[in-house]
Amino acid sequence: MGIQVVRFEKENKASWGVVAGDKILVLNEAYGTLAEFLEKGAEKARGIMKQGTADFVSLKEVNILSPVTKPARIVCQGANYSTHRAEAGLETGRPPFNMIFSKADSSLCGAYTEIVRPAHVKLLDYEIELGLVIGTDITAPAHVTDKNLHRYVAGLVIVDDVSARDIQLPEGQWLKGKSYRTFGPTGPYLYLLDEEEIPLIHDLEVNLWVNDELRQSANTNQLLFKPAETLTELSEIMDLSKGDLIITGTTGGVALNLSAEIMGKVSSLAVPGQEKLDLLVENQKTSAKYLRDGDVIRCTIKSQDGKIDLGEQINTVIPSQVASLLNS
Amino acid sequence: MGIQVVRFEKENKASWGVVAGDKILVLNEAYGTLAEFLEKGAEKARGIMKQGTADFVSLKEVNILSPVTKPARIVCQGANYSTHRAEAGLETGRPPFNMIFSKADSSLCGAYTEIVRPAHVKLLDYEIELGLVIGTDITAPAHVTDKNLHRYVAGLVIVDDVSARDIQLPEGQWLKGKSYRTFGPTGPYLYLLDEEEIPLIHDLEVNLWVNDELRQSANTNQLLFKPAETLTELSEIMDLSKGDLIITGTTGGVALNLSAEIMGKVSSLAVPGQEKLDLLVENQKTSAKYLRDGDVIRCTIKSQDGKIDLGEQINTVIPSQVASLLNS
Repeated sequence: MGIQVVRFEKENKASWGVVAGDKILVLNEAYGTLAEFLEKGAEKARGIMKQGTADFVSLKEVNILSPVTKPARIVCQGANYSTHRAEAGLETGRPPFNMIFSKADSSLCGAYTEIVRPAHVKLLDYEIELGLVIGTDITAPAHVTDKNLHRYVAGLVIVDDVSARDIQLPEGQWLKGKSYRTFGPTGPYLYLLDEEEIPLIHDLEVNLWVNDELRQSANTNQLLFKPAETLTELSEIMDLSKGDLIITGTTGGVALNLSAEIMGKVSSLAVPGQEKLDLLVENQKTSAKYLRDGDVIRCTIKSQDGKIDLGEQINTVIPSQVASLLNS
Repeated sequence: MGIQVVRFEKENKASWGVVAGDKILVLNEAYGTLAEFLEKGAEKARGIMKQGTADFVSLKEVNILSPVTKPARIVCQGANYSTHRAEAGLETGRPPFNMIFSKADSSLCGAYTEIVRPAHVKLLDYEIELGLVIGTDITAPAHVTDKNLHRYVAGLVIVDDVSARDIQLPEGQWLKGKSYRTFGPTGPYLYLLDEEEIPLIHDLEVNLWVNDELRQSANTNQLLFKPAETLTELSEIMDLSKGDLIITGTTGGVALNLSAEIMGKVSSLAVPGQEKLDLLVENQKTSAKYLRDGDVIRCTIKSQDGKIDLGEQINTVIPSQVASLLNS
């Protein structure tokens, strides 16, 4: 069985450990990066979980950090569930290509960190996603299949791909609207997979609540482009390193809801930028689903039998206290 | 006056040096990354250039490497010259936002490396761009101005932002179509700026030839979003590290040439993917400007008086010898 790894901070010191009930069994060595933990700490973590003898701290006493450390590449799949495609005004079937973009690694933050809404962002949205932590350096084309997937994916994390729709969509390229600092709560746990658990990647339940109202609910069997084929394609394009993160796209239920006609205009590079922004904001401003300051987002990903459990992420939205320096 | 730094390989050993005529004055220490060179080697490089006494090798004897090392963030500005906006079917004035996307760092390659065209790519295009090498870690909002720009930008490089238009445009997000390995020839020189040369960033001549035909020719005074304001905005969104690369967008003269009507359809997320791909290929296939195997691309960026000179990049396009593993 896999284990739930946490990276945490106590008395200004970052450590790694394994969750056992309400305790963390603590690894003696400090690993500076996720890659270093995967190389040197992962087997020790499995070991202390089997022995059950290690120094421990209470989960409640510590500050849980993102298990994915910086620098890391964050490669994102877009529009990879039909239910999300439908609400975004896109063709609902599997498209001819796997849409790929990236998110800045400085967006990474812990699972209980406050999400800071920039002062100019009006349409702040949530997106729960299954994150795949890369377990090996990939520097050449690789034929990844469900049979060898365990060699490429070390573990799983919850990621909330927080998105400023009024930046993301009118600007056309999604990096900026998804990259503000705190826009990537990750964890709490890195679930380190056992080889025999790999098939369960295709049967995980993904749920997100805002203020205890269930907004997103899906199963990873609905992913249009699966992890193995996605990694095969990415390996043919770019290098990935141990400790990088692939996020697999979100499911239906986000705040964004557009007709094909509006999405067509908002995404067209031939429509002037200000016109697109105004159209989007006008179209979406009456929606009650966009995040407001004080909203609490809760996310879980687990298998039906509960054996794989990535923990529960809880984040509160707060306003930025900082005015922009642009044009100042 | 600034200096022309090169990273090069000779007898399987990577070294750093400074160009003096047809020679490289070689730094004794090996720096593994550009950040390490900027920290520990840059002042030494200025020093040996002043003294003129150092071990040297002939520029012709070595293999020139990209001065930007991996891992690095490559943050890209899109559609940042009016002439390129016009040929791409976009509004030609300065838009209300600075379009930002990224390119995988594994696309980085040396200034004389062959550009490998993937077997499935039909519309391969070139894009000369001025690259800004970040000179300090940026982890919080910073008010960057022309007066303090030298603290944030260590130097300049030529980058060819090679683009597979038939991947980039129909897929909507640009990362994939611009990230194939060898799609980012960088160098040959890292021009390390002196503080008093900063104003010349706004007056560099940018030229690209294909098979000795001048295709792109511009001056960096035409950049719509300037380096200082771009760095201010980026600092408010994401962290950047010493040695990261910002590429400032390309000018008119690329192979891509679309009417607003065609660009509107090709960029609309509401138009099915296959339809967009077919439309783009049909519309562009008669253009003689797209890169063919054997084409030679030549790029230069320099000041009018020749004092700032980023060198000459020369790359030949070759076909990939590898068939895709997808669907195999």
